[in-house]
Amino acid sequence: MVGHTEAEAMALALKLARRGVRGANPLVGAVILDPSGRILSTGFHRGAGTPHAEADALAAAAASGTDVSGATMVVTLEPCNHTGRTGPCSQAIREAGLSRVVYAAADPTAEAAGGAATLAAAGVDTAGGLMAAESGELNHRWIRAMQEHRPFVTVKIAQSLDGRTAAEDGTSQWITGSAARTDGHRIRSRADAVVVGTGTVLADDPQLTARDELGAPALRQPLRVAVGHRPVPAEAAIRGSDGRFLQITEHDPALICRGLYARGARHLMVEGGAMVASAFLRAGLADELVAYVAPLLLGAGTSAVGALGVQTLADASHWRWDETDGGAVRSAGPDLRLRLEPLPASGATPAH
Amino acid sequence: MVGHTEAEAMALALKLARRGVRGANPLVGAVILDPSGRILSTGFHRGAGTPHAEADALAAAAASGTDVSGATMVVTLEPCNHTGRTGPCSQAIREAGLSRVVYAAADPTAEAAGGAATLAAAGVDTAGGLMAAESGELNHRWIRAMQEHRPFVTVKIAQSLDGRTAAEDGTSQWITGSAARTDGHRIRSRADAVVVGTGTVLADDPQLTARDELGAPALRQPLRVAVGHRPVPAEAAIRGSDGRFLQITEHDPALICRGLYARGARHLMVEGGAMVASAFLRAGLADELVAYVAPLLLGAGTSAVGALGVQTLADASHWRWDETDGGAVRSAGPDLRLRLEPLPASGATPAH
Repeated sequence: MVGHTEAEAMALALKLARRGVRGANPLVGAVILDPSGRILSTGFHRGAGTPHAEADALAAAAASGTDVSGATMVVTLEPCNHTGRTGPCSQAIREAGLSRVVYAAADPTAEAAGGAATLAAAGVDTAGGLMAAESGELNHRWIRAMQEHRPFVTVKIAQSLDGRTAAEDGTSQWITGSAARTDGHRIRSRADAVVVGTGTVLADDPQLTARDELGAPALRQPLRVAVGHRPVPAEAAIRGSDGRFLQITEHDPALICRGLYARGARHLMVEGGAMVASAFLRAGLADELVAYVAPLLLGAGTSAVGALGVQTLADASHWRWDETDGGAVRSAGPDLRLRLEPLPASGATPAH
Repeated sequence: MVGHTEAEAMALALKLARRGVRGANPLVGAVILDPSGRILSTGFHRGAGTPHAEADALAAAAASGTDVSGATMVVTLEPCNHTGRTGPCSQAIREAGLSRVVYAAADPTAEAAGGAATLAAAGVDTAGGLMAAESGELNHRWIRAMQEHRPFVTVKIAQSLDGRTAAEDGTSQWITGSAARTDGHRIRSRADAVVVGTGTVLADDPQLTARDELGAPALRQPLRVAVGHRPVPAEAAIRGSDGRFLQITEHDPALICRGLYARGARHLMVEGGAMVASAFLRAGLADELVAYVAPLLLGAGTSAVGALGVQTLADASHWRWDETDGGAVRSAGPDLRLRLEPLPASGATPAH
């Protein structure tokens, strides 16, 4: 078997990265090559709280009893240098005895950057920039969020085929089915904070907890955030009893993001109603759009997406189907789940 | 190899039927079994103007030099008894020397019915009703159209993800891309008539001809129909020069259907605008919905689907994804093509 070049390994690492889920962390893939170019193991990051791609690849090698000393780690993002929910990858790479690290994009965060320098200082041959544009493009919205010191924002909508989120008389439970709702709860369980407007709190009294299909609470629960000026009743379900409730008397998405980022939130899920979701969309503060579409027509009622300030077709808000994480289009029971991300500005060079 | 039962062959025929395209004709599949239950050939109907399923299966057998005398034709619809765009299947079956015909649903049309009786009179063993419910369910909307003496109606919409068909200033060209438009032209080329409102004629001046991706006209062109009271200008593109233009000064979809059925139209494509499409949807005269969805958000503008008379969620118009003809969800360039059919009334027994 002919050995793989580092570029081939990086292309594979990028492909692996696309299996991950978007959120607090970027999509990252890793491939470990021996000096002859043979693939010893691979890994990718499966989302916040799970091992980084480098650690995943090292664990896969260890599990199969493969010696990686003297090998090369090819990874789509600069190995981190900090102890977050997992230990620093730069240290794990050194300890595993790898002799070379090739990465694509530099880590754009202040807290995790510096891994390459640490590795180089420890005598590991390091090279950055291989296919950096592709890696940057894959994570262009996450990079922007980090540069703006705000959480990565997922906007969720649940709508009829004709874009309605409630019928004319305001009834909205349930437009989408239980499979779509369970899928939405899975995103909640990954998010650091879930945001709804006070209008939705008063109209629907949502719990906003993350629950499985049987109603059992997920291990990880987001902060439940009501935004707006209207008082949240003492008996509102969103308050819960775990202290994980917050009201922000503010409508500006940028200020909401700033406040939640300061509290440590790196992944925000905006659940509605339509006015709150539209405010995030209008502000350009939606990094991911998850739309559950039911095979229903309503013909009237509340639009899932309200005024965006678009007057003419040329100024429409452009998105692209996000084929990471199992694909842009999936069925969720009788409904469709669509995932999109904002189209990168044309000609823009991804930051790295 | 163990022979197939007639029920197994019918299940296969139903599966084959689902590969066809909806329109003037029903979805039909056929399997020819020898006396030991071996499959000699299969066939299905590919849409108006192409061979019926029985003829398709007989042609496949002939092409491979397979003798079908004494064999059994298992087919999901009673073989036709009339000469339409193709010859009568009852005659072709007799001439091929088949000794038995098992069909699912009876032909509900006055013009094609009677095939079973003709075959029986000619000494062919015939049995109807095997899996008739499944066949009736597959074609429930086509059967209803035939019973109502009206064309099968395809409603096409092209919309943004948030259900808009034009921006706030009325701009709508083009929300969807060229691949979606070419796909729409393919449906036009199969339809007998294409309907737009006079408002759309005045606003967009559409040609309404069926053209390929290079703009060349399709061999088969539908009747171009403008509905409404406003005069169609002498220079309007829809008039063309081939005499295949008609204005119907009428808004009621049932009367439009009646008039076009009397002129021989068996498949009607409703292209818009939103008011005309909504009128057909509101009247329950949409048998198929084809929605091209662009990854755009507009947040305002014309809704693709207007008032349907639905006040509350429980009264929503319910559809199901139509997995025939290559699937309910497909990409069309950067857009999605969704195909749905009305949910059959629960508990209703399909007519047969």
